[in-house]
Amino acid sequence: MFVKSKNSARLRDEERARLIWLLNTNKAIVSTLLGKLTLAEQYDVGTLADDIAEVGVLVAHLPPPDLADTLEALPAEERHALWNLVAKEKRGHVLLEASESVWDDLIDGMSDRELLEALQYLDIDEQIYLVQHLPRNLTGRLLATLPAEERARVRQVLHYEKNRVGAIMEFEVITVRPEVTLQAVQRYLRRLGKMPENTDKLFVTRRDKTLVGELSLTCILLNDAQRKVSEVMDDDPLTFEPEDKAENAARTFERDNLVSAAVVDTDGKLMGRLTIDEIVDVVYEETDSDLRRMGGLSAEEDVFAPVSKAVKTRWAWLAINLCTAFIASRVIDGFEHTISQLVALASLMPIVAGIGGNTGNQTITMIVRALALQNIQPGNLTFLILREMGVALVNGLVWGGIMGGVTWWLYDDMALGGVMTLAMVLNLLVAALMGVIIPMTMMKLGRDPAVGSSVMITAITDTGGFFIFLGLATLFLL
Amino acid sequence: MFVKSKNSARLRDEERARLIWLLNTNKAIVSTLLGKLTLAEQYDVGTLADDIAEVGVLVAHLPPPDLADTLEALPAEERHALWNLVAKEKRGHVLLEASESVWDDLIDGMSDRELLEALQYLDIDEQIYLVQHLPRNLTGRLLATLPAEERARVRQVLHYEKNRVGAIMEFEVITVRPEVTLQAVQRYLRRLGKMPENTDKLFVTRRDKTLVGELSLTCILLNDAQRKVSEVMDDDPLTFEPEDKAENAARTFERDNLVSAAVVDTDGKLMGRLTIDEIVDVVYEETDSDLRRMGGLSAEEDVFAPVSKAVKTRWAWLAINLCTAFIASRVIDGFEHTISQLVALASLMPIVAGIGGNTGNQTITMIVRALALQNIQPGNLTFLILREMGVALVNGLVWGGIMGGVTWWLYDDMALGGVMTLAMVLNLLVAALMGVIIPMTMMKLGRDPAVGSSVMITAITDTGGFFIFLGLATLFLL
Repeated sequence: MFVKSKNSARLRDEERARLIWLLNTNKAIVSTLLGKLTLAEQYDVGTLADDIAEVGVLVAHLPPPDLADTLEALPAEERHALWNLVAKEKRGHVLLEASESVWDDLIDGMSDRELLEALQYLDIDEQIYLVQHLPRNLTGRLLATLPAEERARVRQVLHYEKNRVGAIMEFEVITVRPEVTLQAVQRYLRRLGKMPENTDKLFVTRRDKTLVGELSLTCILLNDAQRKVSEVMDDDPLTFEPEDKAENAARTFERDNLVSAAVVDTDGKLMGRLTIDEIVDVVYEETDSDLRRMGGLSAEEDVFAPVSKAVKTRWAWLAINLCTAFIASRVIDGFEHTISQLVALASLMPIVAGIGGNTGNQTITMIVRALALQNIQPGNLTFLILREMGVALVNGLVWGGIMGGVTWWLYDDMALGGVMTLAMVLNLLVAALMGVIIPMTMMKLGRDPAVGSSVMITAITDTGGFFIFLGLATLFLL
Repeated sequence: MFVKSKNSARLRDEERARLIWLLNTNKAIVSTLLGKLTLAEQYDVGTLADDIAEVGVLVAHLPPPDLADTLEALPAEERHALWNLVAKEKRGHVLLEASESVWDDLIDGMSDRELLEALQYLDIDEQIYLVQHLPRNLTGRLLATLPAEERARVRQVLHYEKNRVGAIMEFEVITVRPEVTLQAVQRYLRRLGKMPENTDKLFVTRRDKTLVGELSLTCILLNDAQRKVSEVMDDDPLTFEPEDKAENAARTFERDNLVSAAVVDTDGKLMGRLTIDEIVDVVYEETDSDLRRMGGLSAEEDVFAPVSKAVKTRWAWLAINLCTAFIASRVIDGFEHTISQLVALASLMPIVAGIGGNTGNQTITMIVRALALQNIQPGNLTFLILREMGVALVNGLVWGGIMGGVTWWLYDDMALGGVMTLAMVLNLLVAALMGVIIPMTMMKLGRDPAVGSSVMITAITDTGGFFIFLGLATLFLL
């Protein structure tokens, strides 16, 4: 059986893998844990009891973030079996660390009361975050459990959108006054006895809560204890406002290597703080959702969701894709006469469409990323369009030329080769132009440029490719 | 002109935007800065001089990370003009913060000597990182400038690959002995006078450098100064080894909300530390490169690279795509006789291929992400394949059924509708199967599952779609 030793990251990786392996390879463990079978009903009771005991030890030993990852890596039944073993006081933390896509599954078997009880082990910020975003409306019930003065503070935060600084900030901050000495600060800290996680600095405020500076722990340790806070503090700290976008705050944290930062209201009064752990989550989610949205996946789909759920989350994109493919098909149908005269066109047309889709997707991926990283400013639009069209023209002439030559040689028809080359150049230009314009327009309209951009560009380059190629063929070859 | 006020994140965003706007909208500024024109040669000298002065003030005021972002957001000429204004002692830091894609451009006009001088303002870790990864080989020259004892330490680190913990760790750590008191630690820190950035803990080592624990700054501040380090330290800290993957370390940092962590060799001796700022960079790069690679873009292409460079970085994917499209085209050509008998097939076949490509890409995106987030373990392969095939079967029957009905109605041909439905179901199954198998196989072979997976799946679903549809048509309709 497993023996706890040094707390290396690698060891915990092994523990997680072992837990997943045990649950995945031995159905009997899962059935027993879910109460579908009793131990006595099964073969080889000795080994099974050992395995189940080992699962218990691993679950008890692994900290909540590791348990969250393990749960995400299991199919539904195994997930339930494991969740049942997670201790009540750990469940809130596990929920907090787990990704949204598995929440539904986990809280499925819990009553509202059990859920609220599990939340009690969390900080108030964390409780609010969860009740706001869990797929069950518990906000009212949570508020009812709070003392009146907390309730007022909580209500104030509840209205920030999910992607705003206000929604991810923490209330728990340590504040000190500018006029006290570092010695007094140290005495005060010792009296407090603990600091919130990721505290690298204290906030210096006046009596009316106005932020006047920041005092890093380093600063307290490095300076003489007799000096005053106001003499050694950073009096021009970087601050955020609750309406700032979380993504932008993440960029600033990255740029400035911050661990925490103050959140102030428009009057400069301290409301709370942002910490790097929330920021890292934002970064992971942001890039992850870009990837998913470009591929036409919803944020909610998890890789172990049952078939019924996956069908439900994906049907919209499939339907859209089918509609655009249908339109492209109608374009081809319009040229039925041309194709019946020259059947070779049918086998060549997917090349024109495909190469356009490929180039369009390259362009759009690059623009979407550059927009997300704030590398593109309004002044650059013309430059970008010209650049992409330039790349498309060069590629079109080179590869279109090669393809035209191959076509000429294959079908012994120079005109057909010429049409091929011209169609490829034109479709690549369309792809480049739309690859820049689509995401930039979505951005201007306040939409997320990643959503469905890949589906849209493919639709345009397909339809456009067929139309250009068959149109040119009708003009020049019949 | 611009006036410095409170250091809010928003203000610096405005300064960056202003700088980019000035350089993008007024060609005269750039020409003057690059020495192509003198002030006297131009109209409206007063405004121009003011604008240039403002550019100078902004460059002097913005910190290196902001300058790096600004440089990334400018076309080549403007980038050079701005880089020339960056002070020598800032250049190293700007390089460090800038993404790889612009390095080439920035160091273009600098001699080796200038570059080495610019590096001098950096820590030794940072210098090593840059000389190792800059597109110019300066490692030898840098080593020559170092004192002998440093050289040995540097050589030891030089051989770690870029994506390993060893390559991103820092040497600068503060160590203390377990037997001293917290008071002694505080005295020692005050004597040091400063701590490396992102120091949230000191490392407790024995005389032979063996790591025995960690002492957080919080711990020093909260405990009585008479207590010994060994009494209050964390004696089972989480550690990394230099051969660990940086991506995995990033996941651990996220899981455990770490700010820094020790890197130890196999004997448990302290080698250096990892800090959250490096980790945040790893996270950004990792997800960014997943996105780029899936779209068939190289990591080196930046959105403002000149046409010639973009053509060079993209040609390989285009060539591959053209080859696969050509193969698909040959498959269609094989059915020329079938198509000439029933021209409607030519307009319907792209629907079958397109829907397969869409589904395959959804599946592959999900699997690649789940692999990156370590949500998939070997035990899950069968489950995943069955799940995706289940989703494909349901979608194939529903949407293939609808499409089959539409085809029947459009062409008044029931058999054609049936072939359409059957072909869509089969191609969706192929897409689902390959969408799981391709990335999982690449992973097993030690390849990056993101690279080109999108191109590969599209090739298979196109070729497969045409073959299945036209093959079924030949069997049942002729």
